[in-house]
Parts: sequence; structure tokens; C-alpha cells
Amino acid sequence: MTGQERSEEKSECVSLSPMMEADPALPESERVCVFGTGDLGHSLGLRLLQAGYGVVFGSRRPHSSSRLPHGAQVLGHAAAAQSAHLIFIAVQREHYDFLVPLANQLKGKVLVDLSNNLRKNQYPEANAEYLQSLVPGAEVVKGFNTLSAWSLQNGPSDANRQVYICGESAEAKQAVIAVATKLGFSALDRGSISVARELEDFPLQLFPQWRLPLRIAIGLSAAFFFYLLIRDIIYAYVTQGKDISFRIMVSLANKVCPIVSLIMLSLCYLPGVVASFLQLYRGTKYRRFPDWLDRWMLCRKQLGLLALGFAFLHVLYTLIIPIRYFVRFKATERTVSVIRENRTTEFDTTTAWRSDSYLSLGILGFGLYVLLGITSLPSVSNALSWREFSFVQSKLGHLTLLLCTAHTYLYGWNRFLSSSTYKWYTPPGYMLCLVLPSVVLLLKLLLITPCVDRTITRIRQGWERGADQRNPKDSQPLIP
Amino acid sequence: MTGQERSEEKSECVSLSPMMEADPALPESERVCVFGTGDLGHSLGLRLLQAGYGVVFGSRRPHSSSRLPHGAQVLGHAAAAQSAHLIFIAVQREHYDFLVPLANQLKGKVLVDLSNNLRKNQYPEANAEYLQSLVPGAEVVKGFNTLSAWSLQNGPSDANRQVYICGESAEAKQAVIAVATKLGFSALDRGSISVARELEDFPLQLFPQWRLPLRIAIGLSAAFFFYLLIRDIIYAYVTQGKDISFRIMVSLANKVCPIVSLIMLSLCYLPGVVASFLQLYRGTKYRRFPDWLDRWMLCRKQLGLLALGFAFLHVLYTLIIPIRYFVRFKATERTVSVIRENRTTEFDTTTAWRSDSYLSLGILGFGLYVLLGITSLPSVSNALSWREFSFVQSKLGHLTLLLCTAHTYLYGWNRFLSSSTYKWYTPPGYMLCLVLPSVVLLLKLLLITPCVDRTITRIRQGWERGADQRNPKDSQPLIP
Amino acid sequence: MTGQERSEEKSECVSLSPMMEADPALPESERVCVFGTGDLGHSLGLRLLQAGYGVVFGSRRPHSSSRLPHGAQVLGHAAAAQSAHLIFIAVQREHYDFLVPLANQLKGKVLVDLSNNLRKNQYPEANAEYLQSLVPGAEVVKGFNTLSAWSLQNGPSDANRQVYICGESAEAKQAVIAVATKLGFSALDRGSISVARELEDFPLQLFPQWRLPLRIAIGLSAAFFFYLLIRDIIYAYVTQGKDISFRIMVSLANKVCPIVSLIMLSLCYLPGVVASFLQLYRGTKYRRFPDWLDRWMLCRKQLGLLALGFAFLHVLYTLIIPIRYFVRFKATERTVSVIRENRTTEFDTTTAWRSDSYLSLGILGFGLYVLLGITSLPSVSNALSWREFSFVQSKLGHLTLLLCTAHTYLYGWNRFLSSSTYKWYTPPGYMLCLVLPSVVLLLKLLLITPCVDRTITRIRQGWERGADQRNPKDSQPLIP
Repeated sequence: MTGQERSEEKSECVSLSPMMEADPALPESERVCVFGTGDLGHSLGLRLLQAGYGVVFGSRRPHSSSRLPHGAQVLGHAAAAQSAHLIFIAVQREHYDFLVPLANQLKGKVLVDLSNNLRKNQYPEANAEYLQSLVPGAEVVKGFNTLSAWSLQNGPSDANRQVYICGESAEAKQAVIAVATKLGFSALDRGSISVARELEDFPLQLFPQWRLPLRIAIGLSAAFFFYLLIRDIIYAYVTQGKDISFRIMVSLANKVCPIVSLIMLSLCYLPGVVASFLQLYRGTKYRRFPDWLDRWMLCRKQLGLLALGFAFLHVLYTLIIPIRYFVRFKATERTVSVIRENRTTEFDTTTAWRSDSYLSLGILGFGLYVLLGITSLPSVSNALSWREFSFVQSKLGHLTLLLCTAHTYLYGWNRFLSSSTYKWYTPPGYMLCLVLPSVVLLLKLLLITPCVDRTITRIRQGWERGADQRNPKDSQPLIP
Repeated sequence: MTGQERSEEKSECVSLSPMMEADPALPESERVCVFGTGDLGHSLGLRLLQAGYGVVFGSRRPHSSSRLPHGAQVLGHAAAAQSAHLIFIAVQREHYDFLVPLANQLKGKVLVDLSNNLRKNQYPEANAEYLQSLVPGAEVVKGFNTLSAWSLQNGPSDANRQVYICGESAEAKQAVIAVATKLGFSALDRGSISVARELEDFPLQLFPQWRLPLRIAIGLSAAFFFYLLIRDIIYAYVTQGKDISFRIMVSLANKVCPIVSLIMLSLCYLPGVVASFLQLYRGTKYRRFPDWLDRWMLCRKQLGLLALGFAFLHVLYTLIIPIRYFVRFKATERTVSVIRENRTTEFDTTTAWRSDSYLSLGILGFGLYVLLGITSLPSVSNALSWREFSFVQSKLGHLTLLLCTAHTYLYGWNRFLSSSTYKWYTPPGYMLCLVLPSVVLLLKLLLITPCVDRTITRIRQGWERGADQRNPKDSQPLIP
Repeated sequence: MTGQERSEEKSECVSLSPMMEADPALPESERVCVFGTGDLGHSLGLRLLQAGYGVVFGSRRPHSSSRLPHGAQVLGHAAAAQSAHLIFIAVQREHYDFLVPLANQLKGKVLVDLSNNLRKNQYPEANAEYLQSLVPGAEVVKGFNTLSAWSLQNGPSDANRQVYICGESAEAKQAVIAVATKLGFSALDRGSISVARELEDFPLQLFPQWRLPLRIAIGLSAAFFFYLLIRDIIYAYVTQGKDISFRIMVSLANKVCPIVSLIMLSLCYLPGVVASFLQLYRGTKYRRFPDWLDRWMLCRKQLGLLALGFAFLHVLYTLIIPIRYFVRFKATERTVSVIRENRTTEFDTTTAWRSDSYLSLGILGFGLYVLLGITSLPSVSNALSWREFSFVQSKLGHLTLLLCTAHTYLYGWNRFLSSSTYKWYTPPGYMLCLVLPSVVLLLKLLLITPCVDRTITRIRQGWERGADQRNPKDSQPLIP
């Protein structure tokens, strides 16, 4: 909505308002009732008036409610209920009992439950279901509760045009959708009233699926940060007395990022491999996975996206290397020392091969990484068939893991065997981070050997070890 | 649709056509009528024939319309109207009056209004509403007008599978949706006929919300370009006679981009801060913001995305620095001069700290920047609850601003105090661009101090200064 | 779904199960029937039980089906059909004929066809249409077939919350949507039963629109890889005996990527230009394009996205140049030789201009490239009007092509005229790749000259050469 349209609405609202108060001739479909004169009712009423609706507030003390939007009518609850077909319940759940004596006036009316709770599972049943049980004669529709107060008052902006509604009666929902549309929202019917709990929980959530992956990422980052701090900075200070603490900002960060990224990427593919071996061991797919495995599999997407984030930082940290003062200083110093000591430099083709291969593998791995990230955008993954999605996420995902692991091995190169690598008898970070991806890749290799693969495929098509296939005729693989 | 399917359709169309003209036995639901034999009617008719419909054109001169698609029937308007239940009105609004005498034949028919206008607000009411007023007995459905002529003729391609329709009658809309589905489109019911104006304005818009932000971006870029051109290039030419005009392409661009990016990012967070102070000053949230502030707040997303674009260019311009001929030349020259003058170079840990910190802050800031950009993709922001969206855009957004501002301060470092920085008594660009973000961050800091924060929170929950809370029982925070 | 909710469901399922078997009192809407005790029926039944439904399996041998989920009832087909209103047909199409004798029991029931085929066009009509023809008295709804077996059994995860259904009866579809919603899916009504074939083909597809573009990309990459391998690596080995094979990994890759990217970007804009000239030549837009052109135009998006992928790799390969061992070695060697040979280095402003311009054009081109990529994300392009989409993809697209072509010309610079460039009389890769974009840009330039543009515009508005405009009144440009 542009500013111009907004100002038009405003003036329309002002010009309408003197008439509204005394206009019982307005058709019922153009009049709506709001129960509750608190902040929520206030904001909603304002918005409804701006959209051209006649608004009747229901209040316990109709004569003392002075703060209501200009243009609205205030009546007692019973009178207000009779004035409109659609009634918004902008009252907290604890006070719903005032509706019980109004059962007669509310018969056949559409009640829109806008309430939210303070935390999940606060009450045994959803607020909308409770409301329905109190006023069985009315048609309860849950809705609008996923909006912020700001957008209820100001109309939809880009991020929150969508409202979700649910309820039993199709006509009641249609009426609510009509109002939502007129207020500028795009309403989506999510189904029966049993969805209400989900809608009520929605505004409370703050990245529930990201918590575990985020904790893993932060834990790993902290652990490797301190490990490398000791090995790199403190070791240099203790053994050589050199202060190279400035390296924390870039060199250390550029070690922590790729390490955490590679570990999280393999954590993203490990549960699938574990699940396959579990199915192989059990000989059936009809037994539920243990809870920890279930939970792990459900956060694979988040693990992968965090891994991509760390890989992105690693790429940036790597690309700025030649701009760093330290690196430029070292380059000059090296050249100067070549001249002063009159050394000749020898070009080493093997080093060139290694350096270029390691960079090239990293680039290709990162390219695939980004591709995986793009296909997990909701709009992209919705456009893919299940076969396509699984091709990208499984085939290309394992290829990414392979490329990134090879990139790290080439980075290590022959330093694995040199004893000077193991300061204070500890292995460098990149060696530690290679353990998990190597294990995942080995297990995956085992799984795709023809004989294991055949068994797995049969199990996934419903075959069970020890069970004879009595009804082979009925069995049908879902995805052929 | 693949080419193979297309060719099948074509042959089907050809084989059907001789029969169609003489086939009144086709059920009414398989026959549609198109009024208007112009380009629009032509394209639509072709597409309908290809999808297997029988098409009857309504024309004033049925015998002289030779250009119509092969296989279609042409009748007079009245006869055509009687032959089908669904009638597409492919005529310009100015000529709608020819429908008035047909009121009897059109009674109960579904009229699909496909028209568009040449500019916004060309007429007092939407074309579809005007059509409905002319033929009150028919059911008017607005739709298909958001499609390009190309896709109407050729069927949907990737970008325009979606068509929007609106209208009063659910059955009429259902019938139109059925045709749309058969033509390969995915139709979305947007609600009552009052949405028609929005649908009619849609094809006319060319990034209306991007205009103001784009103008700001272009204005800022031009201003800083000329400012830096004078300070850097012309200053060097005038005072030292050196021609360093080649710097325009990269060095200057790499100064303009980060400056504009930082200013636009702070412009994106300034209105929120201003609005908070306005609410604090007024002591209520129930008064509308002035129009300029409203308009500003509505283009924050666009401001932020443009800022991200400039930051992206800044990152690329920075990363190619070591590849530039000029930079490589300078590096060689520096080393050569060290040798020839037999100087010793001293490693400065403070400079290393500063250089690395400044780069690291920039990288983290850009990482968050990209994250903000990703969450403003429609499909991502739709999947977020309001609480999540506001966490990302507000908390992480201000953190991004903080990181980028610190990055710029560290870039400036101790040059703020050196007089040689102020060529011709003008401050360098990065100093100018620090003013706005510093102000925004200071004001934000003020707002999150406990005492101010408490007042703001109460105001946002509906509290008003000077008003006693008579109905505290009804007041309920929307988002707890 | 979090792990906690899952475990709750599980326990609920267990507690329900003893009652379910003997509970005919459950209302019919809470009971569903599943025909077919194979893998698909098994998985679906398990999921339905977990969602709280009573499940009755229909089986030919009800007493020998031991593998069914705990809690489900098993009856003969006829008895099972009578116990519920909604019947899932989890049987392969070849066995549908067992339903014919059940016609009486199935009358008025809703049959959900879940079947998939092994390949496209396996049968003359869609499975759902065949089912409907066998049991004309029932209401057939196609649905759930786009889900993977995993998600049918475990409930929706992020990537496959969406299920598509289609069918003739609105009430039948409503009933299926209700079940889908309760199982946690979001069901989208795609229209009448004629869409069934599309839904049945969906799970079989594996990037059908990407095949041709991918083949082109792979073919071009391979061709240029071998061409450059011979020109660069083998030439050096044969004529100078130098082994520079390490260059394959980065230098060669960084030549192949931009070459393929530029060619594919011009292939993306060439068909539009060809189509315009074809329309000009024919003097009408009402004749279909030849099949090859149609097919080419339909894969432009994929061509463009692959071109973007290659450009992305080119950017990464370019940015890591200064980190390469080879490049660092060369830089040191160059400086050392300057000192030892006591040469003076001369700064060449022209070279600086060329180097900076070439990099800057590349950066701007890549920025626009990324912008084009972002606007082709489904959620972004759906939010654009046709006018906006065409502005971005056509205007900005051609600008991108222009910038990237200019970037390549500047890269070549004066080497075009030097004979040493033509090793073994072959032109370097970047010259070859300039041919196609230059042709496209020249043709486009021709098309936007005023006189040609006017004719094209008239043709696109429906004008035909040789046809007199008899009904100018009816003709209306769709997009003014």
C-alpha cells in the first residue's frame, strides 16, 4: 500500500465516522462486532473502520469506554452480539466465561477467536476449542492470531500478508476470509478446528528446529577455538616468546570455520547412514527409529544450512588473505630475503599441483554446497518432485561431502607424517575434523556396494527378514 | 510442457477443428464464448481450442471476421451468449455498453472480465465492478488479466503459472478456476469483486515500492561519486599534477559502494527508532504516524536489499584488489625500494591487529547482511512466525549495523586525527558515512536502556499516558 | 514435529489399539478404510492410526494378513468398504479389477487413488480416470501419490508438507483434504480429475527441463576443455618441452567456466531474437514457432541459471588467483629479476585503465547476473507482475550480456591483433566465445532501432501484414 492510498483511507474513515455511529441501516454483512476493548480490540477496530466496516464494540461498561477508535459504536455485550453476524473475541481466554450467559444471542453467530497464550501447552485444549465448548451454538473460527499487533493495526505489509484460519463450518470460514481479504490479508484455510492448537503455538515459536543445530555449532566453534588458541597462539608465545595474538581475528577464525563446517556437514549425513544400518540390522523398516535418531534426522536441514554458513565465512576469510597486512608484509620479507641471501628459488611442480587441486576442489565443493542451500529454500524445494529433491540432497550432498573431505586431505598433504605438525603432541584441527567425514564416507561406500544396496532396497520396499511375503500382489513400491 | 506434448496438442487441435464448427452436441461445460475478436480474443480463443474447448466468438459482424483461429465458430453477440455458460469479455472497457441490450441473454451467465487499463485510477470504479453494474443479472468474475499475452496464447510457462481471480459468486469462480486449470494455470481465489481494482492495477505496476529507495540509492551514489572524484582524482591532479584517473573504475567504485551501503542500511533502521521516540513523546500508540514516516517504514525492506546489493559489490571490489595491475605494480615497487634503499622493514603488531579486525568485522557483518537478505525472500519470510521475523530483522539487523559501523571505524583508525586526511578541508567519504549509523546506534542504545524500554513496551501493549486503565481485564498483549 | 510430540503420539496409538479393534461406535468420519495390505497400505495405515483415525484394512484373505500395524482391523473387501466413507486404494493399477464386483458397496464412497506408474504414458488414461470408469458410482479423488513412502509413514517434514489432490466432486475432495490436514499435510486442490495424469507423472520426473541445457553445458565444457588443453598445456610441452600440466586444475578451469558461461548466456537470449525476426519475416504472431524454437525458448531459464553457475565458479577461480603457489612464486621471481637485472619498472596508465575497467565490468556484470538469478526463484518471480518480470529478464538480461561481453573484449584488448596469440593458428578460447554474444547483441541492436521496433510492436499487438484491420474497435493490447 502506498502512502497515497493510506491517506485516502484515512480521510474516508474520518468522513464516515459521524455517520457510522447513527447508522443501523448498514447491511449486517458490513457491520462487525468486537468483544473486548483492550489493546487488541482497539487495534482491530481501528483497522476495520479504516476498511469501511461498521464496528460495534461489546463492553461490560459501554458508557465508560472512552478510549475506543473514533467512529465505532459501543454497546453492552448482548446488544452488540445481536447487531452483527461476525464477532471478534479480543478477550483473554481466562475471561471467556462471560460468554456463557450470552449463549442465546450468540446462537448461529460466527465467533473469531484471536487469542494467543503465553507459553505452549498452557491449557489442556486449544483456546478455540474451549470457546466452542462454552458456546456450542456458535460457529467458532480460529484466526488472525499469527499477526503482529502492528500489522493488525496498520494493515498487511510485505512480510505478513498471510493469515491462517481454521474451523468446522465452511460458511463461517468463508465469512472470515471475506473480512480478511477486505482488510488486505490473504487468508489460508488450514482445515478443521483441530488445527487451532497449531495456530496458537505458531506465534510463540522462536526457531524451535534451529536450537539443537545452533547449540552444536556454538559448542563445536568454542571447543575448536580454544583448542587452536592453545596450539597456535599460546604455543608460539610459550615456546618462542612470540606474540602472534593478532592471528585470532582472521587466521584462527579461518581455521574454526572450515572445521566446524565439515563436521556439521558430516553430522548432516551421518543419521541417514546410521538409519540404513539400523534397518539392515533389524531387517525391517516397520519399527520406529529410536527417538534420538528421529530428532537428529529432523534437524538435518538446519545442520546443513549452518554448515553452509560456516563454509561461506571460510570462503570470505580465505579470499581476503592476500589483502591482510601480515600476508603482504611476509611476501615482501620473503622476496627481500631471497635477494639479500642471494638464494635461487626453485619452482616445484608437485606443490603447484597440490595447491591448485586443493583450491579447485574447495571451489567445486563450495559451488555444490551453495546449490544444496538453494534447493532447500521453501519455494524451490516445493517445486521439486520427491525424486528430484532426494537426488539433489542425497547424491549431490554426498558428493559435496566427498569434495570437501578431499579438499581437507589435500590441504594436509604430507604434513600428516611430519612430527613437527604435532605441537605438544596434539594433532592440528584439520586432522581432527577429518575423522567424522571419513567415517561417514566409508559407511556410505559400504552401503552402496551392490549386495548391501540390494538388501536395503528390498527392506525399503516393505520386505521383512523372517516374514514370508504372503500378499505379494498387494505390495507396491510407492516410488517405483 | 515439453515440445512433444505441444506438438500433440497441435495435431489434436487440427483434427478437432473440422468437427468443432458443426458440433452443437458438445456439452455446455465444454463450450465457452469469447466476446471480442481483437488480439486478446484471438489469443485466448486459440489457447482454449488447443485445450479442447469448443469456442464460440461473439462479433458484431460475424461474417466478416476472417482472422479468427481455425476451428472456432463465430456468431452474433446474442446467439453466442446463448451457446455457452462462460463468456470471456475480451473487449475494452469503453465498449462495454454494447452488453446492456444483451441483459436477457446474459442472465445467470458467468462473465469473465479480462480487461486492463492504461494507467492507475483511470476510472472511478474497477472495470469488473462497472461491468457488473451494466449487467446486474450476470455473475462477473475478474481474472486472467495479470497474464501476458504471450502466456495466454502459449499456455503457462514457469514464471506465470499463477492467475488471480475474484468475484462474488463462489460457483462462478469455481467454473472459471476449472477453465484456468484446464488451460494449465493455477488459479488463486483472491476474494470478492472489491479486489478487482487491485488485480487491474497489478499489471501496470513497475516496482512501485522500489522507486523511492532506488532514487535515494542513485542520488547518494552520484553525490559521493562526485565528492570523491574531486577529493581523490582532481585533488591529485591539481596539487601534484598526477593523472590517477584510472582509479575511477575500481578504487572510487569501492569507496562509493560501502558508503552508500552503510548509509542505506542505517536509513533502513532509522524510521523504527524515530517511530519509537514519537510514541514515547506522544505517550500513545493510537495516533497515526505522519505520512512521510509511514511511507519510509513501508520501504525499509527495499532500502535494506539495495544496501545489501551495494555491500555485495563492495565485497567483490575488495576481493579483486590483489589482482589489479596497479596493486601488483605497487607491491613490486615497494619491495624493490626496500632493497635498493637497503631499508629494514619492521612488523607492527598493532597494524596487524587493526587490519585483521577490520577485515574480520567486515566479513561477519556481510555474513549477517546476507542472512537478512535471505530471510526477506518471500518464501522464507512466509515460513517464519512474526516473532522469528522480528528477531531476525530487528535484533540481527541492528547487530549487522553495529558490525558494519565498527568495520568502518576501524578502517578509519587513527586517520581521524591526522590533518593530512582532510584534503581541501573536506573529510574523507567514510567519515561522512559514519554520521548516520552512529546516530541510529546511539538512539537505539538509548531505547534499550531499561527505563525507556519499559515505557515503550507498555505503550506498545496499549497503555496511554494520561489515561487511567479502566478495563485492564480486557487488555491483552497480542504477542505475549 | 518435535520428538516429544512424536512419542506422545506413539503412546496414544498404543493405548488406543486394544479399543479400536472392537470399536464400531467410532463415528464414520473418524474411521477410514485402506484397500491393500502391501507396503503402501501398511505405511499409510500406521500413519492414520497415529493421527487418531480408526483404520479398517480390506484384504482378500483377512485372516492371514499378519503384518498389519497394531491397532488396525482387517476385514474382507466388501465388509471393509461398508465400514467407512473414505477408502484409500493402495493397490497397483493392474489389480483394480477386483473393485468391479464391489460396485454396490462402493456406491457414493470416496475412493482415494494413491497409485503411481513405473514410467510416463504407461497406460492410455490416468490411473484415477481408469478407476473412475471401473466404479462409476464412487467419487474418485487422486492424491497423496506425490509423497515419498518415508513421509507417508512418518508424517510431513519440511520438504514435503504439500500434497496435491484432484477430482470431480468438491465434497469428496473436502473430505480428503480434511484427512490430509489431520495427518499434518497441506493439501492443494489442483482441479478436476483431468489433472490426474499430471499428478501421476510428477513423481517420475527427474529434472526434465534441465536435461537439454545440462547436455549443452557438459558438451561445451568438454569441447573447450580439450581445445584449451591442446592449445595451452600440450603446445607448451611440444614446443618448449615445459610441463605445466598443473594448470589444468585452476587456470584451465578458469578459462572453461567463463567461456561456457558467456556462450550459454547468449544462448539464453538468442531464441528471443530469432523469434522476433521470424515474426518480422512472417508478418504475424499467429503462426506457431517451429518446434525446435519452442523447445529452446522453454529452457531459457535453465540455460541462464547454468550460465550463472559457471559465472559463479569463474568468480571464485579468479578470486583465489593471488593465493595460488604458482602466482606467488611468479610474483617473487618477477621482483627478484627486476632487482638482479637492475631494471626500472614503468607504470603504464593505459594498462591500469584496462585492467581496472575489465575487472569493474566483470563485477557489475556478475552483480546483475546474480540479480537475474534471484528473480527467477519461484517465490520472487511469483511476486512480480508480468511487466516487472519482463523488465528484469529482458532489459537487465541484455545489459548483463552487454557487460559480460565488454568484459571479455577488454580482457582480450590488443591481443586480438598480435600473431603470437594464435598458437598453431588457432584463436584463443575467449575469442571463440565472443562470436555468439556479439551476434546476439548486434541483432538485438537491430531490433531496437525505431523503425524495426515499431513493426515488431504492431505485430505483437495483433497486427498482421496483408490483413486489413476490420475490427480495430475490438482490438486491445493486453498489456498496454
